[in-house]
Amino acid sequence: MYAITIPEPGGPEALVWAEVPDPVPGEGEVLVDVVASAVNRADLLQRQGFYNPPPGASPYPGLECSGRIAALGPGVSGWAVGDEVCALLAGGGYAERVAVPVGQVLPVPDGVDLVTAAGLPEVAATVWSNVFMVAHLRQGERLLVHGGSSGIGTLAIQLAKAAGAHVTVTAGSKEKLERCAELGADILVNYREQDFVDSGPYDVILDIVGAKYLERNVDALAVNGRLAIIGLQGGVKAELNLGTLLGKRAAITATSLRARPASEKGAIIAAVREHVWPLVAAGRVRPVVDRTVPMRDAAEGHRILEESGHIGKVLLTR
Amino acid sequence: MYAITIPEPGGPEALVWAEVPDPVPGEGEVLVDVVASAVNRADLLQRQGFYNPPPGASPYPGLECSGRIAALGPGVSGWAVGDEVCALLAGGGYAERVAVPVGQVLPVPDGVDLVTAAGLPEVAATVWSNVFMVAHLRQGERLLVHGGSSGIGTLAIQLAKAAGAHVTVTAGSKEKLERCAELGADILVNYREQDFVDSGPYDVILDIVGAKYLERNVDALAVNGRLAIIGLQGGVKAELNLGTLLGKRAAITATSLRARPASEKGAIIAAVREHVWPLVAAGRVRPVVDRTVPMRDAAEGHRILEESGHIGKVLLTR
Repeated sequence: MYAITIPEPGGPEALVWAEVPDPVPGEGEVLVDVVASAVNRADLLQRQGFYNPPPGASPYPGLECSGRIAALGPGVSGWAVGDEVCALLAGGGYAERVAVPVGQVLPVPDGVDLVTAAGLPEVAATVWSNVFMVAHLRQGERLLVHGGSSGIGTLAIQLAKAAGAHVTVTAGSKEKLERCAELGADILVNYREQDFVDSGPYDVILDIVGAKYLERNVDALAVNGRLAIIGLQGGVKAELNLGTLLGKRAAITATSLRARPASEKGAIIAAVREHVWPLVAAGRVRPVVDRTVPMRDAAEGHRILEESGHIGKVLLTR
Repeated sequence: MYAITIPEPGGPEALVWAEVPDPVPGEGEVLVDVVASAVNRADLLQRQGFYNPPPGASPYPGLECSGRIAALGPGVSGWAVGDEVCALLAGGGYAERVAVPVGQVLPVPDGVDLVTAAGLPEVAATVWSNVFMVAHLRQGERLLVHGGSSGIGTLAIQLAKAAGAHVTVTAGSKEKLERCAELGADILVNYREQDFVDSGPYDVILDIVGAKYLERNVDALAVNGRLAIIGLQGGVKAELNLGTLLGKRAAITATSLRARPASEKGAIIAAVREHVWPLVAAGRVRPVVDRTVPMRDAAEGHRILEESGHIGKVLLTR
């Protein structure tokens, strides 16, 4: 088969469409004929050599895909060859075929086409696991979503509104903020002009920035607030005022999805299927796609994310 | 009545036994004739002027007491005048009488004398709420308790062992560590000679040090680890490496009990009564008392805590 390989880490041009050995589904895995994948920030880090795949994972980038089941590994039941699915991957989505543990496979939700479904597993699993399973956002609470127009952000807005929360978003342009408002965001903060602390406090903050925002995020938390960090685009190390944290009885969590063992991913995917998929099927939560790029031109997809002009997901199709 | 007052913040001598107006139980409160109270670190901070009582709380120190119910405020049921009780207070335990919301009142556990019961509510509520309600310590997990010989530490060891956890403690002397071992601690770390990180990783860390230990505490956390900070004896501000935290999918929480609204305290006390009291009544968890000092000599109790030679609770009796 062909896959996007990374012979040497570097810029987008480091991504090379090359012939590689076919994956073989192991015990408890299915083989998926990939129809589409999606670009995630972690793929950019992997391309630059900063985010090696976890042990045992495919060496190719791609943390999610959609497609059709081509073969069942030993011990798999509940799925059949030909089923249209999407899946959360530890890697290998930028390829013609990928093997994936069956616990990370989802049906394509009603009302979503097969290509678009490729952009759902990673954001749905990330948002649901952090905002709901870790931070326990409840009806009537206030959520702050940094990067509201990203793939993560656009889904977080919709899921939080469906849960009855009040949603504030940050983004860097009027166009992005308007799109967030269309998705249901209540308060729009242009981070180039306003300080998100002023619109707080927030019961839950979903953060992709890390160090650069740590102090202000903690300042913006409400009493009993929860800061859920899922990205470190603004650096790794920062001073933390534990007195502020203690005074608010607040919590800071930092998670990533990719390094989790298959058992934890399976539990998250099961929760996504139970809680998120019905909202998607009912049309209350819609995947937001910026554009679609041929998979062999994955470099173009990476450039789009690096320029940060996109709204929602950038998909890669075969 | 008489109470320990703090006319001017300062050293232990700032504590003055003086005549003050009697408290009156409000709606949903009971009046307790105090038999004993206990010295907590927060009392030392309050004496120094660093920890003002929350709004509406008694101005006198004392976060817990035991005694007999002397009167019921309006709307109180389930208790009778003369009942022997202990209680979690927002302040005012260093006094002959104190009014307390009924949700913070507990029966004296079977097998514990009335004086000794004065030292249970604060530590039981602090340990249960942090180690079990917030950090969700589970059977088979590894707990690190900093200050294992403190009132908090001695109860944390016993509750964690009763829950089937593996317990490591830090303390500053052989004598303290031996007492921790008698209470069930599995691994003993003399922090003057050893680095607690070397005995890790830990699923849950109960920390009273704060800034000075933050980096090493995060280093010592296991994957999915939870750092529960309940004191800042080692300072407030420290650098946090979010990359380490994210790589471990770890959580940092910081809480205090005193500032919580009565509703949250009531929920914690109800959980303590359900989960901790039966273990105390069965003799599986025992309050550890260092010594008893007359309440009017509270200054002596404060000196004992400041010298840090004690093991377990220092009680104040009338």
